[in-house]
Amino acid sequence: MAENPITALMNPSSIAFVGASNNFTTMGTLQCLNLSTCGYTGEILPVHPRESTVLGKKAYGAIADLPYAPDLAVLVVPTPLVLDMVEEFGKLGTRRMVIITAGFRETGVQGGLMEKALIDRARHHGIRFLGPNCLGIVNTHLPLNITVAPIQDHRGKLGLASQSGTYVAQVVTYLHKNGIVLSKAISVGNEADINLIDCIEYLGADDHTRAIGLYIEGIRDASRFLDVASRVSRIKPIVAQYVGGTEAGARSSSSHTGAMAGPSHLYEALFEQAGIIPVESIEEVYKVGWALATQPPLKGRRIAVLTNSGGPGTAIASTCNKVGLEVPEFSMEMQRQVSVFLPGHASPRNPIDLTFHVDMKALTEEIPKVLFSCDEVDGIIIHGIMDTGFMELLYPLISSVASITREDFIKMMTIGLDKLPAMPDHYGKPLLISSFFGKEDHCIRTFHENHIPTFDAPEKAARAMGAFLGHLRIRQRSHVETRHNGKPLEAAVRILEKARLDGIDEFGAKELLRVYGVPSTREALAGTLEETRLKASEIGFPVVLKVCSPAIAHKTELGLVHLNLKDQDELAAAYQAIRARDQHSPLLVSEMLVGDRELMAGMTRHPGFPPCVVFGLGGVFTEALDDISMRLAPLTRHDALEMMDGIASRLVLDDYRGMRRVDREALGDILMALGRLAIHFPQIREIDLNPIIVREGKPFVADALVVV
Amino acid sequence: MAENPITALMNPSSIAFVGASNNFTTMGTLQCLNLSTCGYTGEILPVHPRESTVLGKKAYGAIADLPYAPDLAVLVVPTPLVLDMVEEFGKLGTRRMVIITAGFRETGVQGGLMEKALIDRARHHGIRFLGPNCLGIVNTHLPLNITVAPIQDHRGKLGLASQSGTYVAQVVTYLHKNGIVLSKAISVGNEADINLIDCIEYLGADDHTRAIGLYIEGIRDASRFLDVASRVSRIKPIVAQYVGGTEAGARSSSSHTGAMAGPSHLYEALFEQAGIIPVESIEEVYKVGWALATQPPLKGRRIAVLTNSGGPGTAIASTCNKVGLEVPEFSMEMQRQVSVFLPGHASPRNPIDLTFHVDMKALTEEIPKVLFSCDEVDGIIIHGIMDTGFMELLYPLISSVASITREDFIKMMTIGLDKLPAMPDHYGKPLLISSFFGKEDHCIRTFHENHIPTFDAPEKAARAMGAFLGHLRIRQRSHVETRHNGKPLEAAVRILEKARLDGIDEFGAKELLRVYGVPSTREALAGTLEETRLKASEIGFPVVLKVCSPAIAHKTELGLVHLNLKDQDELAAAYQAIRARDQHSPLLVSEMLVGDRELMAGMTRHPGFPPCVVFGLGGVFTEALDDISMRLAPLTRHDALEMMDGIASRLVLDDYRGMRRVDREALGDILMALGRLAIHFPQIREIDLNPIIVREGKPFVADALVVV
Repeated sequence: MAENPITALMNPSSIAFVGASNNFTTMGTLQCLNLSTCGYTGEILPVHPRESTVLGKKAYGAIADLPYAPDLAVLVVPTPLVLDMVEEFGKLGTRRMVIITAGFRETGVQGGLMEKALIDRARHHGIRFLGPNCLGIVNTHLPLNITVAPIQDHRGKLGLASQSGTYVAQVVTYLHKNGIVLSKAISVGNEADINLIDCIEYLGADDHTRAIGLYIEGIRDASRFLDVASRVSRIKPIVAQYVGGTEAGARSSSSHTGAMAGPSHLYEALFEQAGIIPVESIEEVYKVGWALATQPPLKGRRIAVLTNSGGPGTAIASTCNKVGLEVPEFSMEMQRQVSVFLPGHASPRNPIDLTFHVDMKALTEEIPKVLFSCDEVDGIIIHGIMDTGFMELLYPLISSVASITREDFIKMMTIGLDKLPAMPDHYGKPLLISSFFGKEDHCIRTFHENHIPTFDAPEKAARAMGAFLGHLRIRQRSHVETRHNGKPLEAAVRILEKARLDGIDEFGAKELLRVYGVPSTREALAGTLEETRLKASEIGFPVVLKVCSPAIAHKTELGLVHLNLKDQDELAAAYQAIRARDQHSPLLVSEMLVGDRELMAGMTRHPGFPPCVVFGLGGVFTEALDDISMRLAPLTRHDALEMMDGIASRLVLDDYRGMRRVDREALGDILMALGRLAIHFPQIREIDLNPIIVREGKPFVADALVVV
Repeated sequence: MAENPITALMNPSSIAFVGASNNFTTMGTLQCLNLSTCGYTGEILPVHPRESTVLGKKAYGAIADLPYAPDLAVLVVPTPLVLDMVEEFGKLGTRRMVIITAGFRETGVQGGLMEKALIDRARHHGIRFLGPNCLGIVNTHLPLNITVAPIQDHRGKLGLASQSGTYVAQVVTYLHKNGIVLSKAISVGNEADINLIDCIEYLGADDHTRAIGLYIEGIRDASRFLDVASRVSRIKPIVAQYVGGTEAGARSSSSHTGAMAGPSHLYEALFEQAGIIPVESIEEVYKVGWALATQPPLKGRRIAVLTNSGGPGTAIASTCNKVGLEVPEFSMEMQRQVSVFLPGHASPRNPIDLTFHVDMKALTEEIPKVLFSCDEVDGIIIHGIMDTGFMELLYPLISSVASITREDFIKMMTIGLDKLPAMPDHYGKPLLISSFFGKEDHCIRTFHENHIPTFDAPEKAARAMGAFLGHLRIRQRSHVETRHNGKPLEAAVRILEKARLDGIDEFGAKELLRVYGVPSTREALAGTLEETRLKASEIGFPVVLKVCSPAIAHKTELGLVHLNLKDQDELAAAYQAIRARDQHSPLLVSEMLVGDRELMAGMTRHPGFPPCVVFGLGGVFTEALDDISMRLAPLTRHDALEMMDGIASRLVLDDYRGMRRVDREALGDILMALGRLAIHFPQIREIDLNPIIVREGKPFVADALVVV
């Protein structure tokens, strides 16, 4: 594998900076100022047409004046200057650039053309670049920071790639308050060259990055995204927020980065299939990402909840259950072990509620040790550890009645907290902390220093633990199978060749599906009443009679479908009824398949995405129930099985009210076949199998629509 | 209406405090210390058996020694002392108490008996009390604070009642950081006397309280809760979190406050019906509650989003859409007005993205004025206003290259922000602020001082605006109807009288339903084949034949139901088939109702709750789809109509794929009838109407189960 283009970009030993001056109210100057003061040890070469020094450094009058080709060039200049400067750096020999300047594709057609020219120019010189319209990069391990805001914390573990610059450049204080430390952060801007997928690949291979957070407004190459993210997510947790799935979100993202958004459920499917943990806010990208980056993975779903307060304990337990975690009642033996450290009325059952008391040792050391070392618990959430945050509040009151200095009082009340932070790694179980205090509390500061994640509301800690469960499920996926397509089957090629002009009717659609192993109703074409009678007796009554023409949609509503014809008389009557409305179309005589459930499967295409296979309940209510699952082709068997578990009404597929469990292998074959068909034949625009009738557990396609 | 018992409790002019000493590591002392230092102007009378002064105040050796009966007594004493002290205060003449002491019902049977005795003792003396096992009360308008933590902010607008003391007593710093100021806060503990419902009533009538936040682990009297909360929510927004609906949540809450929890969907229905806005975390109880308490109500669903950064703008717009709000593209005229204040590439369409620039005037004044004064916008969310938070970060860098003092720099960069805070009230539209900065930023401090809510993540501001939409829907409900029951109908009384011993069969069930106006299939009972033939020809073919006995469940699975019998021959065959399995049961001959949809409705009972009416899709898939809505009886027509909109698959009730729109009035009659039946006849344990067949838009009950 070729070296990822970002590696060199994130680790330059020299940087040319064009667009900084000595006026510190401009963005370029602020960025260069950050670069100069962040601890970066490489050489910084400002370029400025008039100033001889910029921010105390020697400035070069033009790019051509630079003494050598720097590893990286940063542009924060007016839009019309960008192209020429890229050309100049190309000639100089620089091969990596960060283009902060905006005004390209995100502004419309003309900007789009300019962006195209920019790409061509860069390619011509073998330049790989980030942006345009981005806010820079951060590498806290080098260190390197070319964003507008100084970095407060270094050598972190969470890698970030974002389609919004703000989430890289404007959250320094926020992250610091929350004890979150980034490893690398990349604002990708318009992704004219280097894109978000490159970032995932880079962060996946980066040793300092232990989890990845993504902010996504739209993905252009879902196929490669799926490929790269699936590989990375087996090794590192990836958390992502997608915001382009609503009308206003799509409109906004298009004028923001020109990203191509798609419906939310498409992205849900993409994330699911790629092993990405979806979140609903940027807060969770950071906080859940940080938790996953710092804590050992969860090995099971049993969570211990320890608090000194019933409300947070109940809220954590309840939220754990909601996200699929268990908060099991402890064994009597465990309860006995825990009870030793509890005051009179406190509950040892799990949640453990110490109730209000001032001594913190049980909460910070004694009980955690029991929980970490036992084999009834996979992860631990603690609420209520605090010292100086509360004591600072109390001191003014205490000092009004006792003569003690603030320092002595705070010191007296400060907790050691020297054992707990080491427990997660020692015992290999994740620990999450909930507290209404922040860094004003010494305990919270201690947790932050030790990279133990803290949450400012009980429910948030529980939801973050839910993400650990999500990651566990991803790790447990069977990854032995690879997605393979094989070659288009000859018989199918012939059917589709024939359908090129007139489209493909139901009979042809089912023939095509049969070539790919999809079982359907036995049936035959007929024209005259005599033919119809003959075919019906060959197939055996009861039968279905319907017109068979790619040109006629909504056959049922038009009265062109007659079900459950029991004998030749009923058949003849149906024939006459159809012919009264349609004199010429061929007719399809099918066996009347009576099953106990109706399912549906299909294939749709979306720009920028691989073919999308869908599955759900069938019949006329498919649309109203809107209970479908999706995967992108090609599908592995694992994907197909996950699709079946992905519908809310999955109970229907089991032994349900006396019905036989659906043959999941057979159903999986149908779903995988749809994926293969879609990949083999790009001319197929859409497939709709509805209903798929389940008879004695076996699925049979009763109606099929293939649009070419 | 009698005065609410809490009014006097929250506004005492004298307080006896039993359980404080001069040892400030005990909870009682901390509470009394808070009371002494909070600014309370009434008299505080500590009671202590040994100390002559407590916290600098004269202490009384015994309750009997008190010079007069204080308005309020607070007990923080060992559990065994509580009863006698209540007796003593009763004799003295005190009529309000707060009992902090724990160790009652929440600890088990013995504690429960003690609690019972406590209630009796208090009642005997006419004492109304809060607790036991609570953490006190706060009235920031008096002021009065008997919790363990000092209050930082006074004269607030959010009233809080909580079944967890922590959420009243341990969140002072948290609330202060978030600019949230409580009006009143009540920790209800075990609710042995005064309960959460009394609190809602009190806060509803309290002039200082403009919105109410609730933390709920379980409600004991759902009927009164519904009654009180419905009345209050018409006037003031109520936000509530319920945590008792999961296995672990229920277990935890039972050992916490002994609350009686119930399944989540029951509480969802209760909240919906009571006009309560449900939230999923305590953070939202505070923050959403505060937003509703301080901002004008939303009058429509059109939100303007204004930012200086595309990511937060997109995230806010997207989240607004997800919660049902619109972020409409502005008219060309509006875009023109906004564009005047925008830099080159910025988008005026909504979201308005100013893109990064240092001048804040467009964001804080010029564009907000356009948005507030136009008629295309009902509410405004702004992200990105900041000054000193960012400048403090930057100063160390700036000072390395420019000679300016910190004070001068900060002063230079500080924003006036004198117009924006007044706009919401002036124009009558809510304003919510999103910022990654907190109180370290002068703008955030200014917003807090002016009671403008701030959120530390864009999505949270959008979700809070969603709660304003929820409140708008509640305000728009038609409240002219009252819930009325009428009297039990005589014919129904007779049917149920007859059913007392043997239960009620399907025929009887439908008869009962018909008395209450519920339409069902035409049908008749039969025993012999001759009777069966006769009834069938009276009803008209096709018919259904099934056994009719309250003793036999799962008739279909047992082969005791035969559908769609077309003539006498098929009828006879079905008769023989049934009689081969069941020789004696009466048979039911019904018309074969062919419709295009199957619905279900029913009634269930839950301890502590009024009868619960349910509605959903019918047929065999009801359970798998799990798509039901619920309301508590008696139902208004408005409730019944909301139930129909409350199912996810509500599309099925409309003109759907050629089917006729369901007659909602008729369906509503059925749902309301179930509620009336349940209230008139407590002996009916359960009703299950499934399927209700819809034929040409009209609902008919095809199968009915009534369990007595």
